[in-house]
Amino acid sequence: MRDEATPRSDLDAVFRPRSVAVIGASDTETKIGGTPLYYLRSRGYAGQIYPINPKAPEIQGLPAYPNIKDAPGPVDLAIIAVPASLAVQALQDCADAGVKGVVMFSSGFAEVGEDGSAQQARMTEIARQSGLRLMGPNCLGFMNIEDKLFATFAPVVNMGVAPKGRIGLVSQSGAFGGFAFSVARERGIGLSYWITTGNEADLGFSESVEWLASDPGTDVIVGYMEGCRDGDTLRRALAACRAAKKPLIVCKVGKTEAGAKAAASHTAALAGEDAVFDGIFRQYNVYRASSIEECLDVAYAASIAGLPKGPRIGLYTVSGGAGVLMADMAEACGLVVPELTRATQDKVLELVPFAGTRNPLDITGQVTQVPGAVRKSLGYMAQDGTCDTVVSFISASGLAPGGMQSAQDIAEVRTEVPDVLQVVSTLPSPAFRELVEAAGVPVFEDPNRAVNAVAALARIARGFARTGSDSATAGSPLTVPANCTEPAALAALGEHGLPVVAFRHVQTAAEAGQAASEFGGKVVVKIVSPDIGHKSDIGGVELNLSGQAEAEAAGARILAAARKAAPDARIDGLMVAPMQKGVAECVIGVQRDPTFGPVVMFGLGGVHVEALRDVVFRAAPFDADEAMAMIHEVRAIRLLTHPRGSAPADLDALAAVLAQVSRIAAASPDLVSADMNPVLSLTDGAVILDALLIG
Amino acid sequence: MRDEATPRSDLDAVFRPRSVAVIGASDTETKIGGTPLYYLRSRGYAGQIYPINPKAPEIQGLPAYPNIKDAPGPVDLAIIAVPASLAVQALQDCADAGVKGVVMFSSGFAEVGEDGSAQQARMTEIARQSGLRLMGPNCLGFMNIEDKLFATFAPVVNMGVAPKGRIGLVSQSGAFGGFAFSVARERGIGLSYWITTGNEADLGFSESVEWLASDPGTDVIVGYMEGCRDGDTLRRALAACRAAKKPLIVCKVGKTEAGAKAAASHTAALAGEDAVFDGIFRQYNVYRASSIEECLDVAYAASIAGLPKGPRIGLYTVSGGAGVLMADMAEACGLVVPELTRATQDKVLELVPFAGTRNPLDITGQVTQVPGAVRKSLGYMAQDGTCDTVVSFISASGLAPGGMQSAQDIAEVRTEVPDVLQVVSTLPSPAFRELVEAAGVPVFEDPNRAVNAVAALARIARGFARTGSDSATAGSPLTVPANCTEPAALAALGEHGLPVVAFRHVQTAAEAGQAASEFGGKVVVKIVSPDIGHKSDIGGVELNLSGQAEAEAAGARILAAARKAAPDARIDGLMVAPMQKGVAECVIGVQRDPTFGPVVMFGLGGVHVEALRDVVFRAAPFDADEAMAMIHEVRAIRLLTHPRGSAPADLDALAAVLAQVSRIAAASPDLVSADMNPVLSLTDGAVILDALLIG
Repeated sequence: MRDEATPRSDLDAVFRPRSVAVIGASDTETKIGGTPLYYLRSRGYAGQIYPINPKAPEIQGLPAYPNIKDAPGPVDLAIIAVPASLAVQALQDCADAGVKGVVMFSSGFAEVGEDGSAQQARMTEIARQSGLRLMGPNCLGFMNIEDKLFATFAPVVNMGVAPKGRIGLVSQSGAFGGFAFSVARERGIGLSYWITTGNEADLGFSESVEWLASDPGTDVIVGYMEGCRDGDTLRRALAACRAAKKPLIVCKVGKTEAGAKAAASHTAALAGEDAVFDGIFRQYNVYRASSIEECLDVAYAASIAGLPKGPRIGLYTVSGGAGVLMADMAEACGLVVPELTRATQDKVLELVPFAGTRNPLDITGQVTQVPGAVRKSLGYMAQDGTCDTVVSFISASGLAPGGMQSAQDIAEVRTEVPDVLQVVSTLPSPAFRELVEAAGVPVFEDPNRAVNAVAALARIARGFARTGSDSATAGSPLTVPANCTEPAALAALGEHGLPVVAFRHVQTAAEAGQAASEFGGKVVVKIVSPDIGHKSDIGGVELNLSGQAEAEAAGARILAAARKAAPDARIDGLMVAPMQKGVAECVIGVQRDPTFGPVVMFGLGGVHVEALRDVVFRAAPFDADEAMAMIHEVRAIRLLTHPRGSAPADLDALAAVLAQVSRIAAASPDLVSADMNPVLSLTDGAVILDALLIG
Repeated sequence: MRDEATPRSDLDAVFRPRSVAVIGASDTETKIGGTPLYYLRSRGYAGQIYPINPKAPEIQGLPAYPNIKDAPGPVDLAIIAVPASLAVQALQDCADAGVKGVVMFSSGFAEVGEDGSAQQARMTEIARQSGLRLMGPNCLGFMNIEDKLFATFAPVVNMGVAPKGRIGLVSQSGAFGGFAFSVARERGIGLSYWITTGNEADLGFSESVEWLASDPGTDVIVGYMEGCRDGDTLRRALAACRAAKKPLIVCKVGKTEAGAKAAASHTAALAGEDAVFDGIFRQYNVYRASSIEECLDVAYAASIAGLPKGPRIGLYTVSGGAGVLMADMAEACGLVVPELTRATQDKVLELVPFAGTRNPLDITGQVTQVPGAVRKSLGYMAQDGTCDTVVSFISASGLAPGGMQSAQDIAEVRTEVPDVLQVVSTLPSPAFRELVEAAGVPVFEDPNRAVNAVAALARIARGFARTGSDSATAGSPLTVPANCTEPAALAALGEHGLPVVAFRHVQTAAEAGQAASEFGGKVVVKIVSPDIGHKSDIGGVELNLSGQAEAEAAGARILAAARKAAPDARIDGLMVAPMQKGVAECVIGVQRDPTFGPVVMFGLGGVHVEALRDVVFRAAPFDADEAMAMIHEVRAIRLLTHPRGSAPADLDALAAVLAQVSRIAAASPDLVSADMNPVLSLTDGAVILDALLIG
C-alpha cells in the first residue's frame, strides 16, 4: 500500500519528538514565538526544549541559542515562528542541522500571491531534498495530548485543554480546528492529536490522517477538509483508516453551490465535484458529517462505545413520547427497530404491568415505583438477542440525585452483555458521565442525536464488513475506435465483457428491412454517424417498427432526414436493434475527475439524472459488492426494487455491469468519457442499449 | 373564529389563578400531593393556597380543609392529586364548589382500559356541565413562570427552573415535557408557560396553544404532539397563532412507519396520516422541527431575535472554513447568500487587506491586529442592504477574556441597524450570552445550528407574509352522479369551473370514429363503465389513434375486450378525446381525512406519486397563493419549472385548478374521494384528462 519511504518512520519524529526547538522564541508569552515555548514549558512536555533567538542568551528562563545549528543536542522538531522574510532561511538552517520535522507558523506565502507561492515552492524543495517533514506554513501547528506537547500558538489552549482520549483531529483550517478543539474540551471529549495543516507545502491532510491510522493511541479520526490536491494520497490515507478499521469522520465543505463559491474564494485549491468526493467517501467507508457537531458526536460515540454488530436498535425509554421520537429518528436514519421477543415482553410486563414492550420499551413513570426496574428491564432488552445497540432515554435523571443508580444499572448491563452497545440520552451530571463512559457508554443530551450517532456507527460498521474495492483489479484496456459511432462503441464494450444489445450495422434501408425481418418482433432503426450527437433531434431514430417493410421505409426516411439536417456529417449507414422492455432505464457514465482520475457514475434514466441529479459516483476500479452499495444509494432505488407491474430488477446483473465498466475505466487511460444511456435493467440481466465513447 | 364561549375567559382562571387548592395535599414534600404544595409555598406564588385533606388540620404549615367546599375563599384552580378511585368525586366537589379550573394528576383512566375510559368520560361530562376546565387526568400539570406558579409534581423543578422568558411550551407527554423543561433550564432558555395535557379529557393541546396565542407574555410557542382527536380545534389554534404572528414550532412524532407503530402502541388516539399533518402545518405556517433540540433552537432564536425581513443571510467569520461550512448550510436550508456590494467590499479591504469580502465576509485571523475591526466590518456588512440577517462566527472568542469586546460590537451593530437580525456562533461565557441576548442577539455554539435557526425564522416570516387560506371560501357543492363514469366525472368537474379535456361520449364504435374525425389529429378512445376501474389493464384504452377509421376500429376492439374481460360490467359506450401533450403529468386528489375532513393532494404523475411518495397535502379550502406554495413543496418541482425541451409549466393555472378543487371539496360533504390523474400541466394552462369521483 505504501511506497518505500513509509510515512510512519518520517512522521513519528514530527508528532512524537524527543526534543523541540522554537525558532523565533520570545519572552513575551502572548507572541507567536512566545506562546509555543510557554505551552511547552508550562503544560508538562518532558522532552528537551531549545529556544532559538540570536538576540538573547535566555528566554522564558531557558538557555537560548542564536541558531538552530547551535542547539546542544539533536532536534526532532523545530517550530518556526519568524516573519515570512526569514522563514525560508530558517527552514534551510533546520535542514542543514539535521532537524527531522518542522512546524511553520509563519504566513505570507501561497495564500497571499505569486511571490509567496514561489517562496513556498522553495520550502517544498528544501523538505524533499533534505528529507525533513514540514507542516505548514501558515498553520496553527499541532497538539500531542498524551505527551503534553502543544506545538501551536492557538490561544484556545489557554482556556484549558481537552482530556486525553482516542480521537485524532486533522483540520485544513486552523481557526476551525481551534473551534473544534474548544468544543471538544467543553464537552469533555477526549483527543489524542490535534493537527492543522495550513498551506500543506509538504505534509498535508492526507498524510496526517494516514499517520493517525497507524498511531496506537488513536482509535477514531475526525477530519475537516476544504479540498484535495492529490487524490491518490488521499485515497491511500482513507484506505489506511479502513484497513486499520478506524472510523474516519469527515466534514468536507463546499457541498452546495454557495459553499463551493465560498470555498473557491477562500482556498486556492480546486474544489472538485462534490458528488465525486461523496462517492469516494462512501467507497472508503468515510462517514461524512454535515457539521462539526455531528463529527464530534459520532467520533465521541465511536471512541467510547466502539462499533455495533448491526443496525438493530432497542429503544428504552421512561417517556412514551420520546420513544416514538426515537423510533422516527431511527427509521429516518436507516436503523431497524425490531420487535422484542414475546418472552422478553412478558418478563417486562411482570415487572411493570403498564409498560410498552414491543420496542420502544416504555418503562413509563412507574419506573420509580418498582425497585430495580431499570436494571432488570434494560438487562432483559439487551439479552433479548434482537438488538445490536440499546439507547436509553432517562429524561433528566442524569442530573437528579437518584440518577447515579441508573448510571450504575446501565454500566452493569453494558458489562453483562458485551455484544450489545449501550448509549444513554439524558442531561448528565459530571459523575454520571464519568461512570457510564468508563463502562463504554456514551451520553447524549438529545435523544435524536443519540440515535443519529448510533446510525452512524452502524453504517461505519457495515462499511468495514464490506470487502470494499480492494479486491477489484483493472481490466484490459479499451481503445476508443477512431470516429467512434454507436455500433463501434457497443462492439468495443461487448468485446470487453459487457452485455450490449444484439444489433446489426447495415448500410442501406433495404438492408435495415432485411435485418428487421431477421430479428422478428419490433425494432429500432437509427442513423450511424460519428458526427451526429443527438440522433433523435434530427429524426435519426425511429422506434417500434414492425417487420421488413416498416423498417425499410423508416431507414429511408432516417437517411434522408440525416442528409438534410446534417449535410456535412459522415454517414455510416444504419443500426437496427430489437426493441427491449425492462424494469427501468439506467445511466452509467465514465469521467476523468481532476483529483481522482477515472470515476464511474450511476443513476436512473430520464429525469432522475438530468433534472433531479440523483446520481452516485465511485473511483474506478471497484468490485460488484461496491457496485451494489452504489446502486442502493440512488434516492429512487424503489423504482428498481419495487417497480410497478414488474418483478424487481436483477441488481446483481446491474452491479456486475458497473464493476466491469469500472475495471475497463481503470485500465484505459485513453478513455476520456463514456456514456451508456440507457442501460436497461431487466428482471434477469441488464443490457446496454446505447453508448457514446470519447477517446 | 371563536365560538361563543371564548377560551380566554375560561382559561385565564386555570393558567393565572388568584387562588390554588391542592386536593390530596400531603405533608411529605416528595409525594404527588406534597410536591405541588411545596412548590407553591417555596417558589414564591403570591396567591391564596388551600391544602385540602380530611385527615389533618394543617399541612406543610398551612391550615388545611377537609373538602374543597370548605375552602374559606373562592378557588380559581384546584390541583387533584388523589388516587383514581377518589378522583371523580373530587372533581364533582370542585364543580359544586364553583372552582374554575382543575389540574388532575391522578392516573388510571383512559390509558389503562375500558373502565378507566368510562370514568374519564364522566369527568368530561362534569367539566362540560359545570363549565369548569379540566387539565388531565394523568398529566404532570403546568407552570406559569411569571407568577411562580408550579402546578406540577414534576421533580425537575427541584433541580431549578428555567428563566422567565417569552416561550410557551405545550406537551402531550409529561415525561417529554419535563425533559424539554430541563434542557431549556440548562441552556438558559426563557419560558413563559410549561403545559402538559395528559389524557385531555377536556382541555387539550389545541386549546392550550390557542390560549398561549392570546397570552401577552408569550411570543413564541413550542408544541410536542403525538396525535389529534379534533382537527377543527387544532386548526383554530394554529390559525390563532398565525393571526397573532406568534411562531409555532411543533415536534410531532409518528413521522415514519416505525414511529407510527410506536405511537399506535403508546397512545390510544388515531395517529392519522403524517403527510396530512405535514400539509396542515405548512398551511398554517407551523414550523415542524425534527427534534426537541431543534424546537428549542428555533424558539430561542425567535424569542430573542424576532423574525427577519427575508431569506438573505450575511455570513461573517474569523475562519474561512467556517464561512464555507455556513454557506453550505445556508444554501441547503433554502437561504440566499448574496454577494456584498463592491463599495462595502472595498471598505472592508481597506480595513483588513487579506479579508474575503464577497460573503462570507472572512475577516481572517488579522482581526486581532486591527483595532475596532469587528465593530467596523460587521457594521459595514449589516448596512450593506443585501442581508436580512447576519450570522457571525467568532470561534471560541465568546469564552476568551477579549470576547466581551466582540459581544459589545455585535450588540451595537444590532442596535445601529435594527432591520438586520444578528445571530452569533461561539462558545459563550455567561456574561457574553447575557450581553448579546439583552441586545436581541441569540447565541449558538454550533455554526450550522445557528444557520438552521435563521433559515427557520426566515421560513416562518415568509409564511406570515402569505395570505394563507383565510381568504378561501368553499365553492358550490358537487354531487357525485350515481354510477359515476369518467365522462360524468369530467362533466361534473367542468360544470364546477375546472378545465377538463374536450371529449365526446358516444355509444358505438362508428360514433367514436365520427367523433375522431370531428376532432381531427390524434385521439384516445376509452371504454365507459361505472364498473371498470383500471381501464388500461383490460384493453379498454387505445392511444394515438389517427382518423375516423382507426378510431372506429379501436372502438370496436375496446367494446369487445371489455365485454370479454368484464362480462357483468355495465357498459356505457365509449369516450373519445384528443391526445394532448404538456409539460408534465400531475395528479390531484381529494380525500376525507379522519381528523381534518376534506384534504387535497398534489403530486407529479407516474413514479413520483406511487413509488416515490412525493406528494403534498392541504386541508380544503385554500386559495391559489396557498396552492402555489403547495406545488413548490414537491421535491421534483424542477420537472415543472425546468422541464427538458419545453418552456416552464404554467404554475398559475395549476394553482388555480388546485384551489378550485379545494373549494369544491370543502363544499361537497358527499364527495368521498376524487382522483384526477393525469392533470396535464401546459405551458399555458392546465387540463384534467381523466377523473374518478367516489360519492
